[in-house]
Amino acid sequence: MKTKQLTKAVVAAGFVLGGIVPVSAQNQKESVSAKADWYPSSYGASDEIGAANLLTSDVVLQAMKLVKLGKTLPLAVPIDKNLPAFRHRSFNLYNIQPGEQAGNTTGPNKFTFNDELVNGWTGVGTQLNGIGHIGINNVYYNGNKAADFVTVEGVKKLGIEKVPPMVTRGVVLDMTAHYGKAIVPGDTEFTIADIQAVLKKQGITLRKGDVVLFNTGWLELIGKDNKQFLEVEPGIGMDAAKWLADQQIVAFGGDTWASEIYPNPTGEEFPVNQFMLAKRGIYNLELIDSRPLVRDKIWQFLFVLGQPLYIGSTQVNVNPIAIY
Amino acid sequence: MKTKQLTKAVVAAGFVLGGIVPVSAQNQKESVSAKADWYPSSYGASDEIGAANLLTSDVVLQAMKLVKLGKTLPLAVPIDKNLPAFRHRSFNLYNIQPGEQAGNTTGPNKFTFNDELVNGWTGVGTQLNGIGHIGINNVYYNGNKAADFVTVEGVKKLGIEKVPPMVTRGVVLDMTAHYGKAIVPGDTEFTIADIQAVLKKQGITLRKGDVVLFNTGWLELIGKDNKQFLEVEPGIGMDAAKWLADQQIVAFGGDTWASEIYPNPTGEEFPVNQFMLAKRGIYNLELIDSRPLVRDKIWQFLFVLGQPLYIGSTQVNVNPIAIY
Amino acid sequence: MKTKQLTKAVVAAGFVLGGIVPVSAQNQKESVSAKADWYPSSYGASDEIGAANLLTSDVVLQAMKLVKLGKTLPLAVPIDKNLPAFRHRSFNLYNIQPGEQAGNTTGPNKFTFNDELVNGWTGVGTQLNGIGHIGINNVYYNGNKAADFVTVEGVKKLGIEKVPPMVTRGVVLDMTAHYGKAIVPGDTEFTIADIQAVLKKQGITLRKGDVVLFNTGWLELIGKDNKQFLEVEPGIGMDAAKWLADQQIVAFGGDTWASEIYPNPTGEEFPVNQFMLAKRGIYNLELIDSRPLVRDKIWQFLFVLGQPLYIGSTQVNVNPIAIY
Amino acid sequence: MKTKQLTKAVVAAGFVLGGIVPVSAQNQKESVSAKADWYPSSYGASDEIGAANLLTSDVVLQAMKLVKLGKTLPLAVPIDKNLPAFRHRSFNLYNIQPGEQAGNTTGPNKFTFNDELVNGWTGVGTQLNGIGHIGINNVYYNGNKAADFVTVEGVKKLGIEKVPPMVTRGVVLDMTAHYGKAIVPGDTEFTIADIQAVLKKQGITLRKGDVVLFNTGWLELIGKDNKQFLEVEPGIGMDAAKWLADQQIVAFGGDTWASEIYPNPTGEEFPVNQFMLAKRGIYNLELIDSRPLVRDKIWQFLFVLGQPLYIGSTQVNVNPIAIY
Repeated sequence: MKTKQLTKAVVAAGFVLGGIVPVSAQNQKESVSAKADWYPSSYGASDEIGAANLLTSDVVLQAMKLVKLGKTLPLAVPIDKNLPAFRHRSFNLYNIQPGEQAGNTTGPNKFTFNDELVNGWTGVGTQLNGIGHIGINNVYYNGNKAADFVTVEGVKKLGIEKVPPMVTRGVVLDMTAHYGKAIVPGDTEFTIADIQAVLKKQGITLRKGDVVLFNTGWLELIGKDNKQFLEVEPGIGMDAAKWLADQQIVAFGGDTWASEIYPNPTGEEFPVNQFMLAKRGIYNLELIDSRPLVRDKIWQFLFVLGQPLYIGSTQVNVNPIAIY
Repeated sequence: MKTKQLTKAVVAAGFVLGGIVPVSAQNQKESVSAKADWYPSSYGASDEIGAANLLTSDVVLQAMKLVKLGKTLPLAVPIDKNLPAFRHRSFNLYNIQPGEQAGNTTGPNKFTFNDELVNGWTGVGTQLNGIGHIGINNVYYNGNKAADFVTVEGVKKLGIEKVPPMVTRGVVLDMTAHYGKAIVPGDTEFTIADIQAVLKKQGITLRKGDVVLFNTGWLELIGKDNKQFLEVEPGIGMDAAKWLADQQIVAFGGDTWASEIYPNPTGEEFPVNQFMLAKRGIYNLELIDSRPLVRDKIWQFLFVLGQPLYIGSTQVNVNPIAIY
Repeated sequence: MKTKQLTKAVVAAGFVLGGIVPVSAQNQKESVSAKADWYPSSYGASDEIGAANLLTSDVVLQAMKLVKLGKTLPLAVPIDKNLPAFRHRSFNLYNIQPGEQAGNTTGPNKFTFNDELVNGWTGVGTQLNGIGHIGINNVYYNGNKAADFVTVEGVKKLGIEKVPPMVTRGVVLDMTAHYGKAIVPGDTEFTIADIQAVLKKQGITLRKGDVVLFNTGWLELIGKDNKQFLEVEPGIGMDAAKWLADQQIVAFGGDTWASEIYPNPTGEEFPVNQFMLAKRGIYNLELIDSRPLVRDKIWQFLFVLGQPLYIGSTQVNVNPIAIY
Repeated sequence: MKTKQLTKAVVAAGFVLGGIVPVSAQNQKESVSAKADWYPSSYGASDEIGAANLLTSDVVLQAMKLVKLGKTLPLAVPIDKNLPAFRHRSFNLYNIQPGEQAGNTTGPNKFTFNDELVNGWTGVGTQLNGIGHIGINNVYYNGNKAADFVTVEGVKKLGIEKVPPMVTRGVVLDMTAHYGKAIVPGDTEFTIADIQAVLKKQGITLRKGDVVLFNTGWLELIGKDNKQFLEVEPGIGMDAAKWLADQQIVAFGGDTWASEIYPNPTGEEFPVNQFMLAKRGIYNLELIDSRPLVRDKIWQFLFVLGQPLYIGSTQVNVNPIAIY
């Protein structure tokens, strides 16, 4: 854990140095301006699915072995207009009964039905963020330029509809136990050491194809302190992200909306997500509710995710299922 | 298979009898006007999830055994504004890059992102229809009255957010092979005998908790003959529905948007869906693409469905995953 | 002015009388259950525009004479997502620059543009409510039954697109001066006597075809006390409504969202609007900002209203223009 | 009229010259790349309303004199989802009866109502295009840079909510009579000479503050040949635009969706609108139905436009009223 004090010192130093926030050697190595050597992707120059390439039959079969009890758990949070949402985003769902004004029914069987209309951003609530969601200076995964592949009616490349089913091992890392707090403080950066300590404590070693989900207690704030929930977030920093990526995970995320420390002490805007999605082709999962798993100490499980195939979308509401 | 000739005869007879379409004894037993003895539900008077009660740990563990190859398949069809949609329904998705006008980026790391807004009905494309979707004279599953539980911002009971994960055996019935046609004709009613013949041919016996999906070849029409796709549909009739319900299945559906013969020869409006959802608490799945399974003769598989938890919705876009 | 004390007494009496709130003889005469003699309309059994029939050339020419200074004033309030809205209603507008990701432009002339998408209810902000907006037990103006003319994609009769331009005399009644308060208290019912006193004070006599707008100071609450703004409203009661209708006005309204006292002391739901629209075919205008007119004591003026012709809508955002 | 033959020759010449389409001296003078001397605006460096500054009391009073008969005419076309729309744009309106499922009513007065929800682009149907709608290389009227004033929830400058009422003289130019065709051919460019000839024929001289509307017969295509309606348009070219701007008009437009010849023979993207809005602060009005005026030879009239005040929008649906 990097302490709040350190964070403050780093930021202060930035101001001393003329407004330029110093970045670690690690970060500099990944710096955008320094180089553009992050593409083509190691999965091939025309690849559009990134780390989903790791989802082999072997990964599936290994994950199957985690099912012992025949129990299942939805990892999504329920979504409605009251859920706190990022900036401009909102969600409205309307229930309508077409043709049933004044109690009208249809046919001799008096057919009636409810129909629903959604006016919403796909980024409200539990969501899968595809690798086309975040870019660096308008360049996205595998060097795809926004100028070329983005249209107002959806992306022509990297769309969420191309992501194969995610059937693999899911791993939950309980950061609340690690820090000994029901809700991990908002300015806590998870380091490599933090993650390794939790893995050791939980008896797990990460492996290729894993989905790694953090439990921070942060969902407890929803409806109680939406302001704090949206303004600041605990989460991994760039070092931890790099290490996770090197373990060849397929997706990272958890119970916050940022899935990384926010605001980032370096002054960068979501650098971890940017690194993971754009440079490494790793997916992100937001607002994942792992509380029941943590309660029962289910640290690993069969993770199954099928996302609605909205053509040209780069994110979409989902409900991954844990089976154990 | 009930033949076209029979169908026509039945309808003709209806007109002869003064506009009253004759219904079978079976249907009369289920008739709305005759009685209201279809609730409380056998799952309890306050039950809101119907046949999802059948999804026990045992069902999960049994289904796990179907995974041999470690292969996975998305069962959804991709969705965009061009997909043919039922009546008033439509779907539009917009890709927007907030704050990035004129190529703006954020932070020293030049963060850019794509965000999506959906204006769409949840009933366009592959969807899970909850048991609150269809009612009889404004009364829904377990006797819930629309007057009481429906609001413009969603249902207060029977919402899709209450449906537990569907992890069970999925069964595909290939009706195209049964009828020897790449696309089963639109006026074909699947009878009990038809279904039993296909099950026998495929070497399957239905069991409690199954999800039963029909392959009719109908998806081939999309983009080629959207008009036909929307106007008429092959599918099960009421007798077959009753028989399927008696096998204690959890959900039925397939590659059409109606999941039953449409228009129904009795002149009723979606009587099968009405029976299954409202009276029996059985879920419906529309626009399920089982073509790759049929091609490889994968007649049964582990079926995993996690639906986005839109509070108060009675249907929602999904992408169930077949694992085998 | 009916006092708060009286109101409370009436309501209290209602409870004493077994829960039945006593209504005035006036109201009883208009009672729904007592009779259905309010149609056909006096404008003809097939009429769809109600009091807009009163907008003759003579009315137009008379109103023209009110223009002395060549000054103009928009009577609408600006609309965005922050404006307090009735119950389920909301309004979101998005600015999008299609095809301009990464600063793209089109053509040698480097064309760029802003485009806007609205997801909103037509009843947020200044609006014209057509006579198809409100009904009595699912029956609307001129006896049109909801079961017959309403569809999910708009009404087939009484739509706002059929309303002719409203070019007539506008009259502002300043209730703030009448009551000697910058903001008229929320439980104030404007009686016939109140209106007549204001008219006399302002030197005006109502005439056929007038649009009558009340200034209550209520807009001052927006952004300061949205809760009060939405929960309670000063306004005319049924007696005043009847009297105004008898003056053959075309539209009534003002700077509140209800245009009548709300909640109504009788326990009825918007009885004044119901009476005016459904029974008398008189239009309603909400959130009309007449403050600059009141400031300059412009009590009458040329009123010009052209509403966007949304087919099948019963209300729509507008911006009537005062010219004087 | 520039002939089709000339147009083809110009385009052909462009290809001969290595893909560079030759532009007239006039156009070169206005060329973007050549200079950026088109701001600050002549109305002041902080001006946000452009030619609306010309709408003086004198202009209003002069226009009042055109009212002789007391007749009124809506200049808008009715809008629904079937209206042909520019590219990505669409419009859907839903009629909903909140709380009235199963025929529910509210209160002892059995209150019922229709409510409408719009999911639509403000650029479908008759619309006012504000001067913030179109820019040059992401720079808009008065040098406002998109990077500075555009947000996803609306523009912070140049918004339609700032445009004062347009009360002035409206002038209709009947191009169908000029060309002797019920529908002016799509590739017809209106020149200065064409406009002057029509003005002379109709006995009108343009004056400061006018709104100039062209009648081309093009609305006749709607519902009959939507493809042609959207693909090509007759209209003014750059020379005519410059001349109109020099007459100090406030707005130009008419019965097409482009209000200029489209595609432009120079290969530029809407250069006329770009010039008028961005450089001259002149407003644009699309899909104006002047057919009844032309039928009755009403060439000039009192034009009154009040647009809904959608904050931060650069275009909005309107219905200007002609009074004569």
